Amino acid sequence: MSEQRQMHLGVLLLAAGNVVSGWRLPEAQAGSQNFPLVQDVARTAERGKLDFVFFADAVNTFPGMHPSMVLRLEPLTLLGALTQCTSHIGLAATASTTYTEPYNLARMLASLDHLSGGRVAWNVVSGAFAEAAANFGTAKHPPHEERYAIAEEFVQVAKGLWDSWEEDALVMDKASGKYVDADKVHVLGHEGKFFQVKGPLNITRPPQGYPVLLQAGASDTGCHFAASVADVVFTVQQSKDAAIAFARRLYDLARGYGRDPSHLKVMPGICPIVGSTEAEAKAKLAELGALVDPVYAMKVLSERMGHDMSVFPLDGPVPTLPPSSIMQGHAITLAETAARQNMTVRELRDFVGMSMGHKLVCGSPEQVADELEEWFRDGAGDGFNLLPPYFPGGLENFVDHVVPVLQRRGLFRTEYTGRTLREHLGIPRPEHPAARKAGNALPEPA
Amino acid sequence: MSEQRQMHLGVLLLAAGNVVSGWRLPEAQAGSQNFPLVQDVARTAERGKLDFVFFADAVNTFPGMHPSMVLRLEPLTLLGALTQCTSHIGLAATASTTYTEPYNLARMLASLDHLSGGRVAWNVVSGAFAEAAANFGTAKHPPHEERYAIAEEFVQVAKGLWDSWEEDALVMDKASGKYVDADKVHVLGHEGKFFQVKGPLNITRPPQGYPVLLQAGASDTGCHFAASVADVVFTVQQSKDAAIAFARRLYDLARGYGRDPSHLKVMPGICPIVGSTEAEAKAKLAELGALVDPVYAMKVLSERMGHDMSVFPLDGPVPTLPPSSIMQGHAITLAETAARQNMTVRELRDFVGMSMGHKLVCGSPEQVADELEEWFRDGAGDGFNLLPPYFPGGLENFVDHVVPVLQRRGLFRTEYTGRTLREHLGIPRPEHPAARKAGNALPEPA
Ligand SMILES: Cc1cc2nc3c(=O)[nH]c(=O)nc-3n(C[C@H](O)[C@H](O)[C@H](O)COP(=O)(O)O)c2cc1C
Ligand SMILES: Cc1cc2nc3c(=O)[nH]c(=O)nc-3n(C[C@H](O)[C@H](O)[C@H](O)COP(=O)(O)O)c2cc1C
Repeated sequence: MSEQRQMHLGVLLLAAGNVVSGWRLPEAQAGSQNFPLVQDVARTAERGKLDFVFFADAVNTFPGMHPSMVLRLEPLTLLGALTQCTSHIGLAATASTTYTEPYNLARMLASLDHLSGGRVAWNVVSGAFAEAAANFGTAKHPPHEERYAIAEEFVQVAKGLWDSWEEDALVMDKASGKYVDADKVHVLGHEGKFFQVKGPLNITRPPQGYPVLLQAGASDTGCHFAASVADVVFTVQQSKDAAIAFARRLYDLARGYGRDPSHLKVMPGICPIVGSTEAEAKAKLAELGALVDPVYAMKVLSERMGHDMSVFPLDGPVPTLPPSSIMQGHAITLAETAARQNMTVRELRDFVGMSMGHKLVCGSPEQVADELEEWFRDGAGDGFNLLPPYFPGGLENFVDHVVPVLQRRGLFRTEYTGRTLREHLGIPRPEHPAARKAGNALPEPA
Repeated sequence: MSEQRQMHLGVLLLAAGNVVSGWRLPEAQAGSQNFPLVQDVARTAERGKLDFVFFADAVNTFPGMHPSMVLRLEPLTLLGALTQCTSHIGLAATASTTYTEPYNLARMLASLDHLSGGRVAWNVVSGAFAEAAANFGTAKHPPHEERYAIAEEFVQVAKGLWDSWEEDALVMDKASGKYVDADKVHVLGHEGKFFQVKGPLNITRPPQGYPVLLQAGASDTGCHFAASVADVVFTVQQSKDAAIAFARRLYDLARGYGRDPSHLKVMPGICPIVGSTEAEAKAKLAELGALVDPVYAMKVLSERMGHDMSVFPLDGPVPTLPPSSIMQGHAITLAETAARQNMTVRELRDFVGMSMGHKLVCGSPEQVADELEEWFRDGAGDGFNLLPPYFPGGLENFVDHVVPVLQRRGLFRTEYTGRTLREHLGIPRPEHPAARKAGNALPEPA
């Protein structure tokens, strides 16, 4: 049993729920700034031996956004707090390569990796929302392809900064008074198209070498970027066959970049609605559906599609639209789903209202486990990114009832066997470049 | 007794010690990235009922810097962790207005204020080290006066962002489905010389309204800036008379800015060396002195003076130099001290080697308490910023032996009476501007 390939599971913690109406359920906690709830959910995920909890992010807001998007605790400071409330689970924060500085972000992520003992991941996003630009004095949100070019250079700089210090550069010898071995501290001297960063970073190498890198690109450029740098790829998939094709494509691309594809973990998103029986799960789904506000649902649909969908006739067919510059993964999957099922705009709106575009898996614990197992065995991914419809119950049901089924089937760990997130995911720690080539020692300032 | 004016005490936590040789003492812990030590020290400070622990910062490094400066955990993520290891003590982080974005920093500080229940302070620095520029693709570190102009506008933007949400804007009404009262969320629309920031911020108002603002400027511009915005002012003072004059000047300036000077807390820095007897304290001082590396000490002196001091004859007089563009507070105080005592460069180097330029107070618990009490009663400040020579013992000695003496004399709290840092400091929570004037409601995006 234990020699079976193991499933990886993460959870996307939007405290107001991953479904448009999640926060309105009587048993749901509504607050998206509610730290006691976040802490409770992270501990539930750790009790379930999940690989990681994950926090989405944006650097803008509108009061009319979906509740889970409008307000949030800032992910990096939140991760700082969670390092002290959890002991094993991975902690993943989203941060934008368009609206932060590589020196500051690389440093914070390194600091968090130290504070957590090697449990940190970074969801590398270029920033889906154009409205962010106005909060940063930037004339204009850079276009899609340029955002990826920035992201690529940003990650390269971050890795260079994480390599500033060789593993044994910090000597701290009280007898001789030597604190640092200066020959083992390296200037980066990056002079690129978007960034000029000299270094070295003022913190030693993260325990994981580099924090785990997550990515969720789905456009062609996005897939190439993910295949070249990501350890974990999130993806929006409604059909198993499309998910299999996506995973194969990513593994192939990774191979093309000289990587071992088994070090790339593809994780489709799943919104699990679990009841003790199928009927109970369906009743919960109906209850959630009845609480959906169609105005919110239309806003979420428009965001997912990258176009204002309220301008089209509600009962007409879903029109064919140019590619989204916001979230192509969602737009592609929704367009396919609408075409396959011949949906009207209203039907697609209600579909998105329920799952915010992610795949709903609704049923008894065995039924949910069956569907996950089938996708997993057939190569639709290396595990799943869970998007519970509401908190805390939506995750508790999964952890208490579905996880044990997966464990009995030998598909999921019953204990953490490692301490770092890289160990949970079964991906290697990158060695310091000095172990491969000679570096340039840092000159003292003149 | 309890009607006496109360002293405020903070501690500057440089984990490798505030004295050049602190980390080399046998009983010292050396690591400046040592979180268990930081946590232990923060808890000791909380046991001593101190107002806050404070973390200095810089966004550059050289292996030849003093150990306490070369490496550190990043202060904002570190504060995140400490929110969960402490319950009452204030948590103060340094962050630069030259190398961060107001939207990102205001957001993180608000997040930390929420995570800590209103215990966060921000040490507003414009960034003392010119070498930082090279880590941010900036052609050049802005000159002293421009750095303050940027800092001033930055703080104005941060306050505007913290006021994005009126206190009751978050409705979260499950029955009606109304999450936010959009009329109570405000666009800032800041269009300044250095920043253009639209807002609103994606987090509600910090529990303290604004986090507590710390400042340590000593130049003329720096004093004006501190007097106009700071809640707490750090200052480097070697003589009581100069400290009294400085505090009076700050209160007067604050009055000129229309502020109540009792809301401005001036805190000179003190490096306490406490023994059970005077002889024991002096022996510790000698032990520290014997471990000072003169090369490090000369580097610290050069940094404090803002000029390379190693080019002057060691046994010649301390030359008169143009104003420092790095840390004028230190440079002014050291020049005064050297002149008063007719010091050579070597003597000033050894003086700085011991205390890094801060005032040493060395003796038995009663002697240390006597000196603090005299300064405090004579108006040299509202309390002290403690800079223990090494950790953890340097603070433990103060907390276990000096704090009880101050408490017996009715000068310092025996229990926390409030929950927020503003309450510890006795300074009011700023009310939301909507309580004073009508704001502009946020339009939905087109
Ligand atoms: C599960 C999931 C989570 C995501 N989280 C974020 C997020 O937190 N912030 C963000 O800006 N974009 C987020 N995205 C959007 C992706 O990063 C987005 O696809 C990318 O920015 C645009 O790339 P593409 O055009 O290649 O799809 C997420 C996407 C998925 C599927
Ligand atoms: C106790 C104390 C702590 C300080 N901490 C920092 C710090 O962490 N980072 C920094 O860049 N400057 C720090 N400074 C320097 C002041 O912020 C500095 O005086 C200012 O940047 C330059 O202003 P001035 O020229 O008006 O003195 C500190 C100064 C003092 C006295």
